[in-house]
Amino acid sequence: MKQAVFLICSQDRKGLLSGISTFFYQQNFNILHCQQYTDNRQNLYFMRVCMDITEMPITRHQLEEMFSEFAAPLKLQYSIHYSDEPQRIAIMVSRTSHCLYDLLMHAQDEKDLPCEIPLIISNHPQLEEVAARFKVPYYCFPVNGNKAAQEEQIIELLHRHHIDLVVLARYMQILSDRFINEFPHKIINIHHAFLPAFQGGNPYLRAWDRGVKMIGATAHYATPELDEGPIIEQDVERITHESEPDDLKRIGKDIERRVLTRAVRAHLEHRIILSGRRTIVFSK
Amino acid sequence: MKQAVFLICSQDRKGLLSGISTFFYQQNFNILHCQQYTDNRQNLYFMRVCMDITEMPITRHQLEEMFSEFAAPLKLQYSIHYSDEPQRIAIMVSRTSHCLYDLLMHAQDEKDLPCEIPLIISNHPQLEEVAARFKVPYYCFPVNGNKAAQEEQIIELLHRHHIDLVVLARYMQILSDRFINEFPHKIINIHHAFLPAFQGGNPYLRAWDRGVKMIGATAHYATPELDEGPIIEQDVERITHESEPDDLKRIGKDIERRVLTRAVRAHLEHRIILSGRRTIVFSK
Amino acid sequence: MKQAVFLICSQDRKGLLSGISTFFYQQNFNILHCQQYTDNRQNLYFMRVCMDITEMPITRHQLEEMFSEFAAPLKLQYSIHYSDEPQRIAIMVSRTSHCLYDLLMHAQDEKDLPCEIPLIISNHPQLEEVAARFKVPYYCFPVNGNKAAQEEQIIELLHRHHIDLVVLARYMQILSDRFINEFPHKIINIHHAFLPAFQGGNPYLRAWDRGVKMIGATAHYATPELDEGPIIEQDVERITHESEPDDLKRIGKDIERRVLTRAVRAHLEHRIILSGRRTIVFSK
Amino acid sequence: MKQAVFLICSQDRKGLLSGISTFFYQQNFNILHCQQYTDNRQNLYFMRVCMDITEMPITRHQLEEMFSEFAAPLKLQYSIHYSDEPQRIAIMVSRTSHCLYDLLMHAQDEKDLPCEIPLIISNHPQLEEVAARFKVPYYCFPVNGNKAAQEEQIIELLHRHHIDLVVLARYMQILSDRFINEFPHKIINIHHAFLPAFQGGNPYLRAWDRGVKMIGATAHYATPELDEGPIIEQDVERITHESEPDDLKRIGKDIERRVLTRAVRAHLEHRIILSGRRTIVFSK
Repeated sequence: MKQAVFLICSQDRKGLLSGISTFFYQQNFNILHCQQYTDNRQNLYFMRVCMDITEMPITRHQLEEMFSEFAAPLKLQYSIHYSDEPQRIAIMVSRTSHCLYDLLMHAQDEKDLPCEIPLIISNHPQLEEVAARFKVPYYCFPVNGNKAAQEEQIIELLHRHHIDLVVLARYMQILSDRFINEFPHKIINIHHAFLPAFQGGNPYLRAWDRGVKMIGATAHYATPELDEGPIIEQDVERITHESEPDDLKRIGKDIERRVLTRAVRAHLEHRIILSGRRTIVFSK
Repeated sequence: MKQAVFLICSQDRKGLLSGISTFFYQQNFNILHCQQYTDNRQNLYFMRVCMDITEMPITRHQLEEMFSEFAAPLKLQYSIHYSDEPQRIAIMVSRTSHCLYDLLMHAQDEKDLPCEIPLIISNHPQLEEVAARFKVPYYCFPVNGNKAAQEEQIIELLHRHHIDLVVLARYMQILSDRFINEFPHKIINIHHAFLPAFQGGNPYLRAWDRGVKMIGATAHYATPELDEGPIIEQDVERITHESEPDDLKRIGKDIERRVLTRAVRAHLEHRIILSGRRTIVFSK
Repeated sequence: MKQAVFLICSQDRKGLLSGISTFFYQQNFNILHCQQYTDNRQNLYFMRVCMDITEMPITRHQLEEMFSEFAAPLKLQYSIHYSDEPQRIAIMVSRTSHCLYDLLMHAQDEKDLPCEIPLIISNHPQLEEVAARFKVPYYCFPVNGNKAAQEEQIIELLHRHHIDLVVLARYMQILSDRFINEFPHKIINIHHAFLPAFQGGNPYLRAWDRGVKMIGATAHYATPELDEGPIIEQDVERITHESEPDDLKRIGKDIERRVLTRAVRAHLEHRIILSGRRTIVFSK
Repeated sequence: MKQAVFLICSQDRKGLLSGISTFFYQQNFNILHCQQYTDNRQNLYFMRVCMDITEMPITRHQLEEMFSEFAAPLKLQYSIHYSDEPQRIAIMVSRTSHCLYDLLMHAQDEKDLPCEIPLIISNHPQLEEVAARFKVPYYCFPVNGNKAAQEEQIIELLHRHHIDLVVLARYMQILSDRFINEFPHKIINIHHAFLPAFQGGNPYLRAWDRGVKMIGATAHYATPELDEGPIIEQDVERITHESEPDDLKRIGKDIERRVLTRAVRAHLEHRIILSGRRTIVFSK
């Protein structure tokens, strides 16, 4: 089944649901899922509509034209996405493989993550073998004191490969503002702590030192403010006083990869809309 | 803010969302929440619409008439509920107090459970003091071999008090089919196991004996088939080999009460629609 | 069954387990549970031994003398506790009842929390009725600008009632250093956030504003540094973008009370030993 | 650091902890972890002792001789395991890769699962490529109507490779009693349901049909009674009415692999002792 997803945002006012759903009905589309959310504090209305377009009698271009005409007087902000146009993601890693494996396995073997992965970028050579196993080109930029130039090369590489989403899958380098601003809300990072606790470096050791009884991980859109971007997904596991810092790292791996993969999935399925620093993550 | 909730069920077909949302828009209502679900296997469409009716220009009777006229040709099944008409619940208990306290505290002290509790019914005298603390009449029907006659008395009592929902808050008697059929989908029971595991008696001891590593509780609508009714809510906690059967009972109390209270809340907020043996539990 | 619990701390060295367990064996005691933990970073050894003393052939005084003689050359730090000498706890509250109910219900009705509750202290009158329901004296010290004098009165009250543990069950006042230092590691506070995230005031609103996807609660020993004390227990619940600040408060109540009651239970059962800012919480 | 683990089981009686810990002390060993559990219902005592043997002054053979002499009069049942003698595991799979990847990644890449994986066995060819990526020989026995003969070949293969543990990582064939009895408590299976709920086939579809609100997975030792073996580990995830059977399968994958890997880890670290149908799983 081919699907189209409309992500819509607007000032809230009466009649939006009626108007939009009637538009689709009049086009004779079959709405598969429709979810809404109203942020009363900001008076904003958000909507995700997923339609079956398998037998759409008009072209996509025509559909987009018609919706554009419909949306203009209502001042709707929106984007349209098609299920048969999978996004292209670049994975950036350092030395640890668990998040990388999870994304590759779901995308390539289990085929339940709708994306293509044309390249993997790293500042270390260790994971080249993993990339090779999945036949994904691996670009290595070892830290060499010329970070700005390397970032430019990476940016160029990402553009050349028409990358839609950059996934920082335990990439242990801080990206420059220049880099982040080049891909606004197109970079998802996994932080190995339950944000806003333990922002910054060495969160597991600091968690151990603080004596917390649960550890967590947080997937968020990268913004220039380190670990301050909009949170997409979080999860935790219970630990005890017996859990040594190395145990936290090991337990944390499992949290990190499932949190990151869930966040990437939500993004790839076009279930996320941003509202300031908060994310609306529709369930369907 | 006064609210009206419409729970709607229909054969699925195109245009339902458009039609219903347009109806409300034309009446000039402000939709606060609208959630839908389509069961593709049964081709059924379910909808919950919550509206602000604080300044409704027509009477409730008029509203109901109009919606009835609108719904008839579409063959919609529906019910309408008003937030300022709290439901009346009867709590049935045996000897353990944790679920009872939770319901009473939320309804009376914390005032975040929208209901009245006009009576508590028990087959044991122990919890009369708890009822007295909250000034709720307590009716005790000690097990005396004449269960059928007692059930008739209880049914009569429930009808006389215009009870909308019966909550079996660890009531350790099996109700007759006659009783259950008198209140179809109006009885919520808490079973102290993760159904369908450990249906029937002594679930904690059987769970210990089986050596499970988590225990749970399940809130469901009572049906004549014991522990087979539609599930509303479930939750679990982790245990270990160290957890003795008495530990399971104690840990279980906390699961039971939160599962039961969540289920009662969902029912009282009119967020549940039944679809065969499955429940649709809307989040808002 | 009468039990004695020994909590022991020492520099780690070989032979401690052998020596201590042999001491108890030679006294002919039946060890019910024995748990140990070695903090390798600080080279410290911690032990909890729980014995059956139902038929102890010697007096408690004799036991204590003997253990004192045994422990002195080994330089063991230790404390001894008896299950038939329940601790006396004072509960301090402000206006919200959920944590208070939980402690009272478990201590008085369910009788699975081994303690006496001789008094409740508040800075508001609202919960006096709850205290009356459980027949616990309620002392109200409304905020009146003379906090230091009130604290002295409260300290005097706590001493006069031989209070072993002070439980801050959503007491919304910051206690002075003077107060906290009067009861070192004898005050348990519940903070309505997943520490170290959202230390300080209004954590639910700040959590909503930050857009977290889970909220939590933390029980810890109060120290002069606000929300920095040793953590005893934490738990979380998942939320979504739909969860409004009021929903967070309501969901949080359930987390707060179970986290607080678990922490108080661990303390009352003498399962906690402090190691710097970390707690060792033995499971049995 | 080289470690030796003693797993000990005995009739419970006074003095066991003293006797055993004194034995190790007299040998001048450094006990790293020591955990015990008493099953009061069966009057059985269980113990796990983990020692540092890096600088052991005697040979392993001597150690074993000495412990054997010590244990005989006490009628201790025990086994001794060394950290530098990793176990050899065979993984049996059908068509789905998630559990297989997890075990291979942890064993080979992350190196935090102490085992060797000399072979993978399947009844389907699909996962041969995954095996090849990790350079593990892959033996395929397609279902051909001669199951008994194939099982004999597999048994022979497992013996020839000196396999210590067979992991059924979503192997969708029922093994014969003959096979299972050949490897008593040496076969770990992952069942894709929260046992004892949904024993047998198609658990996700049956879970959807029953309308449960959480799904789970269970790792257990295989016994001739299908899905009735001793449970090692379980976990669950929350679902909603929106979760279709395919969603359950996808969500379930994540539960299955983490439950299976945790169970395999506990087995490989010699943290499990069986007590009838229950498992004692020590945390350290």
